[in-house]
Amino acid sequence: MNIEIIAIGDELLAGKTANTNAKLISEKLYSKGYRVNKHHVIKDSVDCLATLIGEIFIEPSLVICTGGLGPTIDDLTKKAMQKSFDLELEVDQNLLKDLEVRFPGQSTLENQATVIKGSHLIENKLGTAPGMIYTFAKGKVILLPGVPSELEAMLGDVLAFIESSYTLSSVPFVRSLGVILSNEPEVDPIIRGLQEKHSGVEFGIYPNFGNISLSMTSLDEKELEEVVRKILLAFPRRTFFSENTRIEEAVHSLLIERGKSLALAESCSGGLLASCFTKQPDSSKYFMGSIVSYSNELKQKLLGVEEDTLEKFGAVSSQTVSQMLQGLFEKTDSDYGVAISGTAGPSGGTENTPVGTVFIGVGKKGEEPIVQKTFHRGNRARVTESTIIRALSVLYQKIKYESS
Amino acid sequence: MNIEIIAIGDELLAGKTANTNAKLISEKLYSKGYRVNKHHVIKDSVDCLATLIGEIFIEPSLVICTGGLGPTIDDLTKKAMQKSFDLELEVDQNLLKDLEVRFPGQSTLENQATVIKGSHLIENKLGTAPGMIYTFAKGKVILLPGVPSELEAMLGDVLAFIESSYTLSSVPFVRSLGVILSNEPEVDPIIRGLQEKHSGVEFGIYPNFGNISLSMTSLDEKELEEVVRKILLAFPRRTFFSENTRIEEAVHSLLIERGKSLALAESCSGGLLASCFTKQPDSSKYFMGSIVSYSNELKQKLLGVEEDTLEKFGAVSSQTVSQMLQGLFEKTDSDYGVAISGTAGPSGGTENTPVGTVFIGVGKKGEEPIVQKTFHRGNRARVTESTIIRALSVLYQKIKYESS
Repeated sequence: MNIEIIAIGDELLAGKTANTNAKLISEKLYSKGYRVNKHHVIKDSVDCLATLIGEIFIEPSLVICTGGLGPTIDDLTKKAMQKSFDLELEVDQNLLKDLEVRFPGQSTLENQATVIKGSHLIENKLGTAPGMIYTFAKGKVILLPGVPSELEAMLGDVLAFIESSYTLSSVPFVRSLGVILSNEPEVDPIIRGLQEKHSGVEFGIYPNFGNISLSMTSLDEKELEEVVRKILLAFPRRTFFSENTRIEEAVHSLLIERGKSLALAESCSGGLLASCFTKQPDSSKYFMGSIVSYSNELKQKLLGVEEDTLEKFGAVSSQTVSQMLQGLFEKTDSDYGVAISGTAGPSGGTENTPVGTVFIGVGKKGEEPIVQKTFHRGNRARVTESTIIRALSVLYQKIKYESS
Repeated sequence: MNIEIIAIGDELLAGKTANTNAKLISEKLYSKGYRVNKHHVIKDSVDCLATLIGEIFIEPSLVICTGGLGPTIDDLTKKAMQKSFDLELEVDQNLLKDLEVRFPGQSTLENQATVIKGSHLIENKLGTAPGMIYTFAKGKVILLPGVPSELEAMLGDVLAFIESSYTLSSVPFVRSLGVILSNEPEVDPIIRGLQEKHSGVEFGIYPNFGNISLSMTSLDEKELEEVVRKILLAFPRRTFFSENTRIEEAVHSLLIERGKSLALAESCSGGLLASCFTKQPDSSKYFMGSIVSYSNELKQKLLGVEEDTLEKFGAVSSQTVSQMLQGLFEKTDSDYGVAISGTAGPSGGTENTPVGTVFIGVGKKGEEPIVQKTFHRGNRARVTESTIIRALSVLYQKIKYESS
């Protein structure tokens, strides 16, 4: 079956926001064994949507449309569906009553309770626009609101509906692996070799700032496991498993498994490394916090970095990072600690520490810390992101392989 | 002219990542007055790309393709272009020499230096795959690498090329406005009214967690200014200007303008509020840092929150947030401070403080702080994001209107 996702919204075409809805829907469908063939983003336009749907339904399809169901002036999806498919709209009285209770006084509720006649509704617990599933001769169209939180909350019901409507003849097995401190040219020849021997396995290679995410898919579970074993052998002490192949999830699971605590001292990463942990439920089991000492003043006040050190070696130096780490352990008494100081640009670089230079310190309480001088290409956001991946990778290795 | 963006990559269709390249390209083009008509995401497949390009070039078009230029096994774009358009590929010897200097020892450099014969090359300073612009009878195809940092670094050259090739007859004026602490049903009737009177102005309404971003576009600058004036009058003390209509940018500019410093004490926002500031260049002019006291232990150790307070009222309480803010001012001596504690879920809610409850404290040194009890719908990520927008909005109002 052909699955395509259409996002409707001028704001996406104007670059106001990335199409995270298509990402999320695709991710969930992929995990259930369904494959999305295409994403489309089109204008808030009756004609555009009608034409595109017409083109897609040349073959039997499932089309998921996001956006354009709200009450604002640029929301036109229902009108487009009505016009292009000659559907009737009707006010759902039960829904209207429910909306009046949940959103008293809003003037647009009747508009929001207007649905496609004969469609299967999906409850929207967070907003006013219900989801609608309409079945045509050639397939189904699922309409969902564009607000990401509302859409996300409704996806469970949508997936259940899809699974009950479209049974997969065979669900492929998927294994994901991360290779840390690596790059494409290193990993590629090994995967090419494996691909030649294992034609039943589909490979994906996704570079991620000095780490590589590998995704292997096969209908043959045994062959898949053999491939995984070979990759593990090829990169000893540098691989991790994780459902989504994200290094922060691997560190998260490892810390919970080991029952150890973690605290951070961040400068140029500015709280973003902390958020890698706090965004994961249950991070409070190990994550104590982060001292984001962005100014030199706070490096001294909060972490006890010496004025002398800052003057002599600068904030971006192994000496400063060592003292940040030392101060961190003294203030928090955590088991593991990470300290980061660097220059993410665009200005602030010097001859010795050009923009992109970042010192990363990783330590365990009572042990000699590792302090690495690293260099990261790209703009401010990329330097920060790359720094975080590197710090997480070094921390993962430290916890997994180097600690008693 | 019809502009469309094609992203090539199975990882996008598998939901591994969102299509941030299309967002970025669209944003840059939009700011120059160009309108992107469609985004497409397709598989790593020769046939898919050839078919789609064929369909688009029924009318004169500019097509920008991202992805599929790297050396890995799933990179097929050049082959697809070659096969579908009967183009010749050739090794660019100058490029090959340059790559050998910059990436010594990599085995795939000849592959990377293979370009479409007759195409205009765009230098890739960060990676191995150059950009290529090929001109057909019916328009142009621009091939760019999929790695976001590489693509971003090349966009300046790409835009310059587009501007020199396609002159716009008239560049519309764009104004953006943010309305804080507001929602769609409140803003919508006002915009509808304005739209009736000002048919020469195009409106966009983008809800953003309790704030609204408005975008107004017109060829008539005077009419545009009149509309902006009317919106400002409709929402006194609740509007802000910013190029990208982001509240963190508005707070950033305001703090630099006023010459005041800021420090944070974060619990449930976990460093993410800090990163809203540190991701902006020049934030070091005002941003001192953040004490991310995620555990109760660190709330006591780093901010001096009393054990008694935590026991009696809990970490998610106005009392705890008040003490966090007080401790923050004592430790950092910053001019402004924000403290946040809440429960973002999925677990951890109680009867009095269900998941989504967040206390936000905003204060100025020496003044009585504002502490608000707020509630945010959605999952963990949404609660955090919504909290941050709220905290930034309250802080903006405090600095802009309530401080001497």
